[in-house]
Amino acid sequence: MFDTLFINLHAATMADQKTPYGAIHDAAIAVQDGKIAWIGKKSDLPDAPEKCAKDVIDADHQWVTPGLIDCHTHLVFGGQRADEFARKLQGESYEAILASGGGILSSVRATREASFEDLLKAALERARYAMTQGATTLEIKSGYGLDLESECKILRVIKHLRELLPMTIKATCLAAHVVPPEYQDRRSEYIAWIIKDLLPQIKQEELASAVDVFCEKIAFTLEETEQIFQAAKALDFDIKIHAEQLSSMHGSSLAARYEALSADHLEYMTESDVIAMKASGTVATLLPGAFYFLREKQIPPLDLLRQYQVPIALATDFNPGTSPINSLSTIMNLACVLWRFTPEEALRGVTLHAAQALGLQATHGSLEVGKNADFAFWNIETPAELAYYLHGRACSELIIHGESAQHCS
Amino acid sequence: MFDTLFINLHAATMADQKTPYGAIHDAAIAVQDGKIAWIGKKSDLPDAPEKCAKDVIDADHQWVTPGLIDCHTHLVFGGQRADEFARKLQGESYEAILASGGGILSSVRATREASFEDLLKAALERARYAMTQGATTLEIKSGYGLDLESECKILRVIKHLRELLPMTIKATCLAAHVVPPEYQDRRSEYIAWIIKDLLPQIKQEELASAVDVFCEKIAFTLEETEQIFQAAKALDFDIKIHAEQLSSMHGSSLAARYEALSADHLEYMTESDVIAMKASGTVATLLPGAFYFLREKQIPPLDLLRQYQVPIALATDFNPGTSPINSLSTIMNLACVLWRFTPEEALRGVTLHAAQALGLQATHGSLEVGKNADFAFWNIETPAELAYYLHGRACSELIIHGESAQHCS
Repeated sequence: MFDTLFINLHAATMADQKTPYGAIHDAAIAVQDGKIAWIGKKSDLPDAPEKCAKDVIDADHQWVTPGLIDCHTHLVFGGQRADEFARKLQGESYEAILASGGGILSSVRATREASFEDLLKAALERARYAMTQGATTLEIKSGYGLDLESECKILRVIKHLRELLPMTIKATCLAAHVVPPEYQDRRSEYIAWIIKDLLPQIKQEELASAVDVFCEKIAFTLEETEQIFQAAKALDFDIKIHAEQLSSMHGSSLAARYEALSADHLEYMTESDVIAMKASGTVATLLPGAFYFLREKQIPPLDLLRQYQVPIALATDFNPGTSPINSLSTIMNLACVLWRFTPEEALRGVTLHAAQALGLQATHGSLEVGKNADFAFWNIETPAELAYYLHGRACSELIIHGESAQHCS
Repeated sequence: MFDTLFINLHAATMADQKTPYGAIHDAAIAVQDGKIAWIGKKSDLPDAPEKCAKDVIDADHQWVTPGLIDCHTHLVFGGQRADEFARKLQGESYEAILASGGGILSSVRATREASFEDLLKAALERARYAMTQGATTLEIKSGYGLDLESECKILRVIKHLRELLPMTIKATCLAAHVVPPEYQDRRSEYIAWIIKDLLPQIKQEELASAVDVFCEKIAFTLEETEQIFQAAKALDFDIKIHAEQLSSMHGSSLAARYEALSADHLEYMTESDVIAMKASGTVATLLPGAFYFLREKQIPPLDLLRQYQVPIALATDFNPGTSPINSLSTIMNLACVLWRFTPEEALRGVTLHAAQALGLQATHGSLEVGKNADFAFWNIETPAELAYYLHGRACSELIIHGESAQHCS
């Protein structure tokens, strides 16, 4: 007998591509010990529902999707940058704002100044909002600290979020986000500090499972990126990269050589990058929020990624400077309208492929027996509706590890 | 002694342009009989707060704006068009979808088939969501009925919403949205029916206060539009128009000749249109949601509108085909990012200028003595934050006629 049986639902399982959305109409899902124990047509249940499970929950013909996965966020930060947003509207470039001490560095100042408690409070509110929008898994990066105390403060906030919320939360160290002001004229020392001091300490305290580098003209060179990857790999961190966002530097090919879980942004990637990522199994995580917010014109090479069957994830990139967007359905809509994703590709991008971008595909990202019982109920007529509203869409119920998690959000 | 006094707030009054947002820091607002009875610096209060009012409410240093006004929506409709959205993603044009019985006509079918109760339930949910986003006033158009029974059904739903919600709700007859299928080859008869039968009945039952026409190649000609305006004017309806969305037909100039409250969309308007609207006091209501959703390239002539000081309103255009967007803060963000509105222009567009687009400027749209005590509290550091998040933003408290309306949403 199962713990719980959900009946009268339509499941967008995302488990295979034989039917659109891997859909099972008139389905049932059984949960045992927080895992999916059975899924299929309700008519294929071995017995009457009330004989199959202790609790039977009637979903009133709603759609169910895997819990959404936001695989690239920066949601622990101090302050906000709405006034900088106003400056951008008057035509200042991202580079110019960065050069005048704005941009990432203004968030670094605000994050350094913020107390642990204030950062936690703001991050908790943001994570809870993400849950209302159907998210059950988040990746969160550091990168607004850039010194030992502040990077660890951010990563400890992430760790504490994990204790407060039932979500799966992955932490990534992005100390190589930008060179901090105090190292402006000695960038090699900053990189040496990351390699020799920061990463070993984070490893020892288990504060992050992955290391990410912003490889770009305004951030870190290909050579600097590789130095950090070597150190991260030696310490057995997973690898991620911000690459080809503003120019083509082939950071994604480099990351593929280091068997990165994902390369992210990728507007300017080339065919050789796509081939390298295919070979290494690296996920392409695309971030239409930053593309929209920065009014970029260069669209990532979606057709090449499709052609080589590189898994494509989508994420919010939620951050105060270039993507103040904290809803995966808003992101799905941007991907469809601006880049011609189909709604099904968009949903796969925030479920199965996002799980893969976090190395969680064995347990997360689709409705399959043995995976975590993380799913969201939606009061919609067709799964395409999930990508249809730009203003975000709340789920009607959120299940994490088989339990209702809506009271948490 | 006032009924209620709100203290410890920052007010974006939008009442004058002497300071950005007409802001008053460390302000207080007194309410009497549902109207604003006093507003100013808290330090200028004539007496201690508790001696000024029966109820004193401490707003904890939040920002207060006028209640937001969505002055152009189509939020009473049956069905949804997410699957059509998928077709658009594969490159089909708006015109081609319209020609194959999709587009507006598929919503007409679904709306005709829907019961009054089902339409009301869906519309109520949408209006309540708008309230969570800070809206206290809505304009809603008919135009998915296109026959007597269905147009009146929509307008009665709007009337009933007004009874169920404390919002100010204005109804507009948009029977001239598209020629219905049964009149396809006899469009002049459809227009004659609107003029002779529909408008008089709507007037008699007081089901709408304004008449709107979609003046466009795929909808109604300039001559047809004028016939309807003449009849509407004779019956003392306010005039509105959908004009210059896809091409330049000078519908906005025509509407100005009929002293329209607003002309809406306006991507292709010319300088002569702007001059005509300035002369008539017609508001330019811009709709970035449809621009975004249809991937339009032609940006409305914002600089000309600024130069001639034509009031610019912003609205969601919430509808199932071309703007599935039900949050004014999402719309403010689109206007800023896509069209370079400043956040202040965007907020004026959904408050003071939106009130003017509905003929409500004497009572709505700014925080001034004598106006309705409709306002929204926001947990933000700067008013620019209201236009900063694409995914929408919930207000922390909504006041309508001086009373908390949050339980309604």
